[in-house]
Amino acid sequence: MNKTKNLNICYIGGGSRNWAWVLMKDLAAEKDLSGTIKLYDIDVEAAEANEKIGNDLMAQHNPGQWKFKAVSDLKEALNGCNFIFLSILPLDFTEMAVDVHLPERHNIYQSVGDTAGPGGMIRALRTIPMYQEIASAVEKYAPNAWVFNYTNPMTICTRTLYKQFPGIKAFGCCHEVFGTQKLLAHAAEDAGLAPKGSIKREDIKTNVAGINHFTWIDKASWRDVDLFPVWDAFVQKYYQDGYDEGGDSNWLNNFFSSMDRVKMDLYKRYGLIAAAGDRHLAEFCPPSWYLSSPEQVKEWKFTLTPVNFRINMREDLKKKSLAYKEGKEKMEISDSGEEGIVLMKSLLGLGDIVTNVNLPNRGQMPGFPLDAVVETNAVFSRDTVNPVAAKAFPQSLHSLTMVHVGIQEGIVEAAFERNLEKAFLVFLNDPQIHKLSINEARALFDEMVEKTVPKKFGYK
Amino acid sequence: MNKTKNLNICYIGGGSRNWAWVLMKDLAAEKDLSGTIKLYDIDVEAAEANEKIGNDLMAQHNPGQWKFKAVSDLKEALNGCNFIFLSILPLDFTEMAVDVHLPERHNIYQSVGDTAGPGGMIRALRTIPMYQEIASAVEKYAPNAWVFNYTNPMTICTRTLYKQFPGIKAFGCCHEVFGTQKLLAHAAEDAGLAPKGSIKREDIKTNVAGINHFTWIDKASWRDVDLFPVWDAFVQKYYQDGYDEGGDSNWLNNFFSSMDRVKMDLYKRYGLIAAAGDRHLAEFCPPSWYLSSPEQVKEWKFTLTPVNFRINMREDLKKKSLAYKEGKEKMEISDSGEEGIVLMKSLLGLGDIVTNVNLPNRGQMPGFPLDAVVETNAVFSRDTVNPVAAKAFPQSLHSLTMVHVGIQEGIVEAAFERNLEKAFLVFLNDPQIHKLSINEARALFDEMVEKTVPKKFGYK
Amino acid sequence: MNKTKNLNICYIGGGSRNWAWVLMKDLAAEKDLSGTIKLYDIDVEAAEANEKIGNDLMAQHNPGQWKFKAVSDLKEALNGCNFIFLSILPLDFTEMAVDVHLPERHNIYQSVGDTAGPGGMIRALRTIPMYQEIASAVEKYAPNAWVFNYTNPMTICTRTLYKQFPGIKAFGCCHEVFGTQKLLAHAAEDAGLAPKGSIKREDIKTNVAGINHFTWIDKASWRDVDLFPVWDAFVQKYYQDGYDEGGDSNWLNNFFSSMDRVKMDLYKRYGLIAAAGDRHLAEFCPPSWYLSSPEQVKEWKFTLTPVNFRINMREDLKKKSLAYKEGKEKMEISDSGEEGIVLMKSLLGLGDIVTNVNLPNRGQMPGFPLDAVVETNAVFSRDTVNPVAAKAFPQSLHSLTMVHVGIQEGIVEAAFERNLEKAFLVFLNDPQIHKLSINEARALFDEMVEKTVPKKFGYK
Amino acid sequence: MNKTKNLNICYIGGGSRNWAWVLMKDLAAEKDLSGTIKLYDIDVEAAEANEKIGNDLMAQHNPGQWKFKAVSDLKEALNGCNFIFLSILPLDFTEMAVDVHLPERHNIYQSVGDTAGPGGMIRALRTIPMYQEIASAVEKYAPNAWVFNYTNPMTICTRTLYKQFPGIKAFGCCHEVFGTQKLLAHAAEDAGLAPKGSIKREDIKTNVAGINHFTWIDKASWRDVDLFPVWDAFVQKYYQDGYDEGGDSNWLNNFFSSMDRVKMDLYKRYGLIAAAGDRHLAEFCPPSWYLSSPEQVKEWKFTLTPVNFRINMREDLKKKSLAYKEGKEKMEISDSGEEGIVLMKSLLGLGDIVTNVNLPNRGQMPGFPLDAVVETNAVFSRDTVNPVAAKAFPQSLHSLTMVHVGIQEGIVEAAFERNLEKAFLVFLNDPQIHKLSINEARALFDEMVEKTVPKKFGYK
Repeated sequence: MNKTKNLNICYIGGGSRNWAWVLMKDLAAEKDLSGTIKLYDIDVEAAEANEKIGNDLMAQHNPGQWKFKAVSDLKEALNGCNFIFLSILPLDFTEMAVDVHLPERHNIYQSVGDTAGPGGMIRALRTIPMYQEIASAVEKYAPNAWVFNYTNPMTICTRTLYKQFPGIKAFGCCHEVFGTQKLLAHAAEDAGLAPKGSIKREDIKTNVAGINHFTWIDKASWRDVDLFPVWDAFVQKYYQDGYDEGGDSNWLNNFFSSMDRVKMDLYKRYGLIAAAGDRHLAEFCPPSWYLSSPEQVKEWKFTLTPVNFRINMREDLKKKSLAYKEGKEKMEISDSGEEGIVLMKSLLGLGDIVTNVNLPNRGQMPGFPLDAVVETNAVFSRDTVNPVAAKAFPQSLHSLTMVHVGIQEGIVEAAFERNLEKAFLVFLNDPQIHKLSINEARALFDEMVEKTVPKKFGYK
Repeated sequence: MNKTKNLNICYIGGGSRNWAWVLMKDLAAEKDLSGTIKLYDIDVEAAEANEKIGNDLMAQHNPGQWKFKAVSDLKEALNGCNFIFLSILPLDFTEMAVDVHLPERHNIYQSVGDTAGPGGMIRALRTIPMYQEIASAVEKYAPNAWVFNYTNPMTICTRTLYKQFPGIKAFGCCHEVFGTQKLLAHAAEDAGLAPKGSIKREDIKTNVAGINHFTWIDKASWRDVDLFPVWDAFVQKYYQDGYDEGGDSNWLNNFFSSMDRVKMDLYKRYGLIAAAGDRHLAEFCPPSWYLSSPEQVKEWKFTLTPVNFRINMREDLKKKSLAYKEGKEKMEISDSGEEGIVLMKSLLGLGDIVTNVNLPNRGQMPGFPLDAVVETNAVFSRDTVNPVAAKAFPQSLHSLTMVHVGIQEGIVEAAFERNLEKAFLVFLNDPQIHKLSINEARALFDEMVEKTVPKKFGYK
Repeated sequence: MNKTKNLNICYIGGGSRNWAWVLMKDLAAEKDLSGTIKLYDIDVEAAEANEKIGNDLMAQHNPGQWKFKAVSDLKEALNGCNFIFLSILPLDFTEMAVDVHLPERHNIYQSVGDTAGPGGMIRALRTIPMYQEIASAVEKYAPNAWVFNYTNPMTICTRTLYKQFPGIKAFGCCHEVFGTQKLLAHAAEDAGLAPKGSIKREDIKTNVAGINHFTWIDKASWRDVDLFPVWDAFVQKYYQDGYDEGGDSNWLNNFFSSMDRVKMDLYKRYGLIAAAGDRHLAEFCPPSWYLSSPEQVKEWKFTLTPVNFRINMREDLKKKSLAYKEGKEKMEISDSGEEGIVLMKSLLGLGDIVTNVNLPNRGQMPGFPLDAVVETNAVFSRDTVNPVAAKAFPQSLHSLTMVHVGIQEGIVEAAFERNLEKAFLVFLNDPQIHKLSINEARALFDEMVEKTVPKKFGYK
Repeated sequence: MNKTKNLNICYIGGGSRNWAWVLMKDLAAEKDLSGTIKLYDIDVEAAEANEKIGNDLMAQHNPGQWKFKAVSDLKEALNGCNFIFLSILPLDFTEMAVDVHLPERHNIYQSVGDTAGPGGMIRALRTIPMYQEIASAVEKYAPNAWVFNYTNPMTICTRTLYKQFPGIKAFGCCHEVFGTQKLLAHAAEDAGLAPKGSIKREDIKTNVAGINHFTWIDKASWRDVDLFPVWDAFVQKYYQDGYDEGGDSNWLNNFFSSMDRVKMDLYKRYGLIAAAGDRHLAEFCPPSWYLSSPEQVKEWKFTLTPVNFRINMREDLKKKSLAYKEGKEKMEISDSGEEGIVLMKSLLGLGDIVTNVNLPNRGQMPGFPLDAVVETNAVFSRDTVNPVAAKAFPQSLHSLTMVHVGIQEGIVEAAFERNLEKAFLVFLNDPQIHKLSINEARALFDEMVEKTVPKKFGYK
């Protein structure tokens, strides 16, 4: 009877050593809820390792509340679920290396390569068929479950879920906005409004609007303070040299870091605060702005994340997994800052929350096509996620964004039809491709597709 | 520097013995804020009485926080304001008596007569020019102030403010939804989910969508409980005889009460919960449903509120005002349940809140025209009110509502042009007018205009 | 090779003694084209009679060009078609008698009863399943054919064709606008601009916008003459007594005639020319305007067409058919004034033409929902029908029309889902139903459905 | 009384030796109409020369019908007009040389430079204030006149007219589509469907959709022949080497010619026929496709039209003008193929015509913003121009076009506000600018503005 106990949760991509571990740690501190997390992964071994790791963690920190179970059959994994987490790597880093690095042959540099640009588009072509399959399985086995998507390309994954199964209750979660909220907290502290480290990210209130990884803030507050003048002063101070968030990690030693110079540059131009990391933001702009060469990237003080780095990181995590599994090492728990569990509790009726998520546009982004997936604030309540309506973008930003909305809509349409000709025409519209002649673009497209999109998906 | 102190508030209609007193009582308990409330009213004497009453009340309950001041000049009243409350009676009860009772000659019965139907439309014709003037004054003297509208016809007043001064920061507040939330709390208690009287209205979470006084709830929760099955059982139990909320006041002795039979009837038909009092809901439906005769009204157990009753009530309040003013009687303070101050605090950055308000449609009501004023949930935050996007209505309800949206848009257009011919064509579209021949409708329209719309407004 | 010879035409409802005969007569004069007309009808005998009659007629007037052939199998009838004519009576006059006359029990009077009002809506419920079947057969057997729909309810039939088979090349033809163009020709002659009878209907140019049987003209010209002042003078002259078109037939002896007083009355109010017969126009308005009683109908000088009259007419036509078939009587040929063949030739590339037709809204009716079927001008060219964009309606007329658009969209949705509850909620929105209490409305709806909608359609 | 005689026509830019002469020659053959053409030009001398030339021409070819009159006062020129022709050079070739050639410093090559790209955008900034002034004068002196715009940037000029005076009756005429229709006639002749030179441009029927100079044809017919297969074969035959239209002029000796290779290339990719000259089409595409270098332009066999060439051409025309004026040379008359007079006659009620023009989008271009100026077919009739609704574009083409629609809307907004910061943000969105870093773009923008946009326009 009690809806918050004995939850039935399915984690697709449950062998993950990233998001799955984050979830585990957060669950280790969660006392209000309880239930079973079914870990489904095509890498069965990894899922089984996580079953062991998770159950050990719970035994230590939160006994009796949560049970992890590796499940190798999708139907069994989904059956009767209340919640589904989606966090998969579409195929492997071999393919991602093609996404990111093959275009470098033409001096097309991608800082991430999983969202926009050639990498993001080609990744979408292989992800969409996989997500169609997932959506159909959800429709069949757990049509009333809430689906949290964490996979990139976020927009395209969420769009596919809804296009394949319009009745799905899904949304896409991304922590990039949180990073900007943290930065605004720093700015407030930097301005002397509060002691360093004292402002919580959750207390920074922002209006969020745009598309994933290219979202914008037109209002930011902390308590009764308007953070726009604060941010403006911050930009004056740090624009030239960039802002170092402190700590051991920075853009020189961490491929995920930056000095926020792109964000500050965009602010100076558009008057709005771009709410994603510089590595993502840069990929949505004409490449001459920030990505024309590795040297220019360095000037802007962010990084081109090599896939090799990801591969090495994974090897380290595999070792760590083994150590955890065999009890040689203990997983440390800590608050991840992620909102997955908070949102789950909200959907269970344990407290409303307003945060940013990715949802089909039903009107919350004026001037953007209906059904395209956009990122705005949303109100979470019991069994409900309602987007908050943003204000219309200024024309120049609307156009800049519409380029990518058009690409996303076009790629999804082409992928649903398994139509490579259509996909190529869309591919041509990405500003990163604009430096290629059509023949070069075609050759690049063909080679990327050949190397990363499995034949079994039936593209023609 | 501190934005929550020394607030500069203007109350237009500040001689009110209704909303103004409610505000006073709520301010008497409010310690976080302080400031001056400038009471502007064309009835200067009433404003001055309220100045005295308000200041006495504060002296007793909340000394040093709030100061009331009658102001007879609109410019002075508005100058430098942070907040503006609008709550006026458009002209007098003489006019309202025409709105409500003249149509009875043709067996057109109106339970309220200030929103839809002939009364609502004609009232709009005289209110719009007054609101144009107010909007222009706000633009001139306090363009950055937040404007709370409480005047009816709510939709048309709010629409006029934005049409006259598009940059205005205004919204319309109405407590009708609160009444339905209270009823849902009763239903939950009635189902044994909690002891009688224990569930707070604020804890009932509802998705709200529609237009003022004809709003609908498609999701209602209390904590982790879905209230739709609860409400469904409640309707089965009480539909036949109606539900008596208890207390001394009921539909037989109080012209503002009802037994919620209309609301339950609409639920049985549309599967959604209409979120306004029966007296308002009935006026949006074809009159054959609930308003064809005083007898039918009785069967449905609600009332036709006579304007005489309002006049008598006012006389009583006038006496009370005198007694308060002269110190012969003491105003009792109590929590009004109104949200005015909560919203003000939210706009000052003292805590976010989600509640229902009236705003121009920028996408929050899919399928309804942009800029038309609609009522949905909205997120209040520092200096921000963002509407929450509702889901599309089912076609039959969409049509039923669009009739009135069309009338509201048409009346506003006609009034801005001071064009009576246009207004009459719109007048013909109200279902309550459908029983009249065109000649009868014209005669009624002409007589109502003649008797209630001052010449100085320049209609032709 | 020559695309205008050996045309393959399918006539569904080919046993008709009305439109089918009109087509025959027009084909008898048509020398540019040739081909076979396959007559399909569930009344096989009637189709066979028409085969004989048509072939006899051609033998006499147009030998060698056209061949008629009764076909009893729908697949065979459609296979390989270039053109398809749809002109059926949805079931029989027994059902139509219920549509038209049962509501009279509640003093709901319908002048036609096949488009709007209870008759039109219930007729739609039984027609939509039939049209879904036809659309699916077209998709299967003749997906590239052009489909001319003549069946009522026009809007709903055309909408169903497109909803069932979105790739269909269909449009709805209606001659009501032609009647108004003739009337404008009369007005021009009446004003002395040309001798009586000299102005051809085709030379009256009009902007057409609206929905079938409730279309409006906002510009009308004859050569270089603006016909609005001409029409205005005409209305001044004839409004009081009505205009008699002359000839033997008038509203007193012909149930299809009127004196155009409704049209003139609407003009006086809206300033636009309603472009359908008074009998149709009246049904879209609140019934108090023109249809509150048979006496009021008489005052407005149009008629309530009894179904009996249609039955008798059919009996006469049956006799005529027998006489034609047996060669006892000869069919007279004459120019029908219909445009079917002209449009066919235009679609074959033999000359462009602009005329009014019914098509899904792709933008030609600003402010109306996309995909709803609307009637506007369209440009016919080889294999092409492109609607001409109308101007936005004034708000009052937009609302009046949207009531019916909402009903049409709602009825189609309900019928596709075979959902009587949904259909009933839509039924309640028709102004003709507004005089009934909900219980009366429900009883009427149920009885009409019971008596006219076959069980086999599977409504629940 | 007769509306076709004594027409009052105003020609703004009446000193033109181009369009004005075309008009003269066409009028020389026009017998149905008569009237006065008031030639207004800031170059008064040129207008006076044209007065003389025109009157001489009429004296010879069409005596008594037409009178030319140079008028130096705008009010006098416009007063009481029935028709207004707008055909001006926004400032002089000095400015145009900056538009076209300054960007070459950054290897930005423009084949025309008056529509899209840096040249088009900067030209717009100085044209919009001039067109605002014209629109206001039309509103004041000739609000009911029909305005024919021939000036580029076409879209932006037409948009400005409507934005400044929403009641204006204006449209933009462009002969680029005619060129494509001629080419289709050639293709039909080339396929042996008719003898060479026998097919008239007017007999090629096309569906036109898009924006000026980037319009597309999705259906093309000649009589009963579908021209798409014909065109397809034509492309197979001529794609490699290009198509030479014959005659003395070709892309090697004429800066306005091309070999249609761009058009054929776009067809191969999009399956639609781009309906403008290659020089224009190329400017809307990413510059890597056709405009990356003068060499690439040569490969595609079109030209970069140097402004010098225009200046020389003008010098020749000035000499010619003098020779005409002094009677030393006689103007030859010939049918220009332009439609100005045909359209004028159509608007006078002398025959309907369907052709392509530029108009605000009221729904004729589904998926494009309302009010943006688009080019589609339109039906011309007495005092009426109604756009014909096009079909929705495929997603990839929609995006490609929306980039420019966004730029056009943004530039107009920025220019109306005289806001250079806004204009620069829009400037950044043009694909031709994408190869520049932001600093380079800013420097280019500033220099172009400095050199071509007069201070008096008040930009900031």
